[in-house]
Amino acid sequence: MPSFSRIDHVMQSVRERIAARTYPPGTRLPSVRAQAKSAGVSVSTIVEAYGRLAAEGLIEARPGSGFYVTAPLAPLSLSALEPALDRDIDPLWISRQSLEASADMLMPGCGWLPSDWMYDQGVRRGLRKAARSPNEDLTDYGSPLGLEPLRQLLARRLVQSEIDAAPHQIMLTDSGTQAIDLICRFFLEPGDTVLVDDPCYFNFHALLRAHRAKVASVPYTHQGPDLHAFEVALQEHKPRLYITNSGIHNPTGARLSATTAHSVLAMAQRADLYIIEDDIFGDLETRPATRLAALDGLSRVVQIGSFSKTLSASLRCGYIAAQSPWIESLVDLRTATSFSSNRLASHILYSALSDSGYRKHLERVRYRLSKAMDQTMVQLEQLGLTPWLRPREGMFLWAALPEEHDALSLARACLPHGVVLAPGPVLSQAPDAARFLRFNVAQCNDKRIFKVLKRALDKELSV
Amino acid sequence: MPSFSRIDHVMQSVRERIAARTYPPGTRLPSVRAQAKSAGVSVSTIVEAYGRLAAEGLIEARPGSGFYVTAPLAPLSLSALEPALDRDIDPLWISRQSLEASADMLMPGCGWLPSDWMYDQGVRRGLRKAARSPNEDLTDYGSPLGLEPLRQLLARRLVQSEIDAAPHQIMLTDSGTQAIDLICRFFLEPGDTVLVDDPCYFNFHALLRAHRAKVASVPYTHQGPDLHAFEVALQEHKPRLYITNSGIHNPTGARLSATTAHSVLAMAQRADLYIIEDDIFGDLETRPATRLAALDGLSRVVQIGSFSKTLSASLRCGYIAAQSPWIESLVDLRTATSFSSNRLASHILYSALSDSGYRKHLERVRYRLSKAMDQTMVQLEQLGLTPWLRPREGMFLWAALPEEHDALSLARACLPHGVVLAPGPVLSQAPDAARFLRFNVAQCNDKRIFKVLKRALDKELSV
Repeated sequence: MPSFSRIDHVMQSVRERIAARTYPPGTRLPSVRAQAKSAGVSVSTIVEAYGRLAAEGLIEARPGSGFYVTAPLAPLSLSALEPALDRDIDPLWISRQSLEASADMLMPGCGWLPSDWMYDQGVRRGLRKAARSPNEDLTDYGSPLGLEPLRQLLARRLVQSEIDAAPHQIMLTDSGTQAIDLICRFFLEPGDTVLVDDPCYFNFHALLRAHRAKVASVPYTHQGPDLHAFEVALQEHKPRLYITNSGIHNPTGARLSATTAHSVLAMAQRADLYIIEDDIFGDLETRPATRLAALDGLSRVVQIGSFSKTLSASLRCGYIAAQSPWIESLVDLRTATSFSSNRLASHILYSALSDSGYRKHLERVRYRLSKAMDQTMVQLEQLGLTPWLRPREGMFLWAALPEEHDALSLARACLPHGVVLAPGPVLSQAPDAARFLRFNVAQCNDKRIFKVLKRALDKELSV
Repeated sequence: MPSFSRIDHVMQSVRERIAARTYPPGTRLPSVRAQAKSAGVSVSTIVEAYGRLAAEGLIEARPGSGFYVTAPLAPLSLSALEPALDRDIDPLWISRQSLEASADMLMPGCGWLPSDWMYDQGVRRGLRKAARSPNEDLTDYGSPLGLEPLRQLLARRLVQSEIDAAPHQIMLTDSGTQAIDLICRFFLEPGDTVLVDDPCYFNFHALLRAHRAKVASVPYTHQGPDLHAFEVALQEHKPRLYITNSGIHNPTGARLSATTAHSVLAMAQRADLYIIEDDIFGDLETRPATRLAALDGLSRVVQIGSFSKTLSASLRCGYIAAQSPWIESLVDLRTATSFSSNRLASHILYSALSDSGYRKHLERVRYRLSKAMDQTMVQLEQLGLTPWLRPREGMFLWAALPEEHDALSLARACLPHGVVLAPGPVLSQAPDAARFLRFNVAQCNDKRIFKVLKRALDKELSV
């Protein structure tokens, strides 16, 4: 029988190598014989140590081939944010399910409009126009800041929200997510704390984990972040950044009130906190909420946006509006990490945004959303769910389940029946998160969704 | 006269705040009066401290407005890699000059083909085809791995290089640079060391700086990295990753020999080093060099590529081929940091790659490059420059200046005359780097380039 302390020693050394990523996931461990030799212990000690590590799930035996590291990379495992969440339902769960879904899946939990709600006509026109454009536009790299006419157009749009950004203060990105990622690269050191709303867009958690940032959260109210909790969080966690939606908050559909906006900004100034205002749902607003970037004059607020939610998610084009010296550094960072702006997509987007059709398209989408909101509300209330708020715009409805239900079990039960839900714990870390689900009312226009949901609520579906 | 120690104390405290990024670049410092009050010192102490910091260049006075932080962010200033390089000629110099260049600039130093050498016909056909495709392809997010038919096509291409990658081992990215960036995110911790060739593609330095990685380099020979120096670097620096081009090396145009490839891989195995093989110039090869990914069977080598150098840089589409568990983590990282693959670009690229025209286009480009290589060589030799190697393929020529000349001064002198050069120190940290220039032979088809260069060599141009 090999010595326990030797077994422990070998196990500890392998664990350390996995943690230090000397053995990254998928690595084949040294053979039992080689390991025994290099550690100066018996083969049976290694057999026992490997066996126990396999039982822990850190490595796995592949018959005839050896032992392989199964553990995900420690700092960059984006899965399993909280011990309570399994790999199936982690911050990327909804993305993974929704992005991989086959065409026959029903996706009330996904974060975008059905493709026939989007502005395909504008994209088609843009494509035909691009097919006739000069060679450079089709084959050359884009400029560092991105297509100038598009930046001018974005600057004019921002002025309408009282955000005074010159075209050279706007940098095009490949997506809203890439915009946030670049700003995090600019502002954050590993270990910095970032403040988010609770609940919030799940991908903020995944993205911040990729930056090795700590996350603190503040409960979101019907008017914006809870101001008292915000103040406490500033003192307690000294966060460097706050990421929020001012227009239509994801997932609650709430909007920032003018009073709250002013207070948040005053506190940010005192605590030297920078703010990313994610305006990705802005075009769905019927009566625009106050923008932090407008109050602040782009001094400590950076606004980002894209057209993935209203025009096309296939084009990949977003933007950052910020003060000039920051834009300069952000351009360098983008050049270093993804080289150039997306020239072709920018041309197609510019074409789609600059014809009068986009405005009409938005009016139609807002009208459809408002009708879908009413209908979904009725359906959910019939099943005993209670909206946390009756949003007057946007696609999201944050709804509480009847007391005894758990959103994670419900999501698991519905998935095999072709329904992808967005369970609360993916979007919130509050104690009662598992009572909530996020619904996208534009994706709820199929009665099968509510039939499956009803059966799950009636515990007729096995998990 | 205020006390020196008090002045020092204030200066130190401001320096620390700038270093800790409590005051990032562009921040307005507290007013002299406010600072005096909060530090409990006299106004004149602050005036003196601010004045000295301004003299140091850390902050600047803007008349009527106050003092602003000028220092770039410490870890993420991608400029000024080496003290010897100024902001004008840093690792991003060539990108910045080339990407921002107006149409009348001559760019023998840039890293891509002129737009009329690219495959615009394939892109135009792809655009027209896309304009008739279903709504989903125009407006929906792409799948996590990216368009399946394109991944299947890439897998078939890889098999031709004896790289056995199933379509699910291939993930599409928005560019070759983004591919490398994601792999760095997967493998690197801040402070890890990465091995690069010397000379190498300048953007590797900028990108690794964004990852806070240390860089060690190995001289590149006509057959690949110098094997002795490689072994020494492994022992000395314990690098985690090695980034290289096997096909056509940037900037020398050399290629990896089979023998060197085998030795590099054997050393990598012993030292537990991972390798990124950047195959972005692969399609320009006439007789393909050995690929590390082929020898290794994608065990510790990850191959990346894109079509920005041969088809279109405007589309933004690259790929990563790697072992499956890594691809899974890379997909999570991409979802977290840029959300989805580039669906529309993938469709257009697939269309362009799958018609027979692309192969004919490549043959034409290779023929033109080979002629341009001969012509450029003659022109440069007439000016007294000596090619380090006579590359038999690709666009790059790495040429030594006559003894007494300095590539940085030459690049500075030529820029106002409309010629963007690629001076050695941007691509190499070797002691004799300033004797070298990288030429892109496809961009050298204008006699004005050599006229300006001759005048600069004759010291007729003022710097």
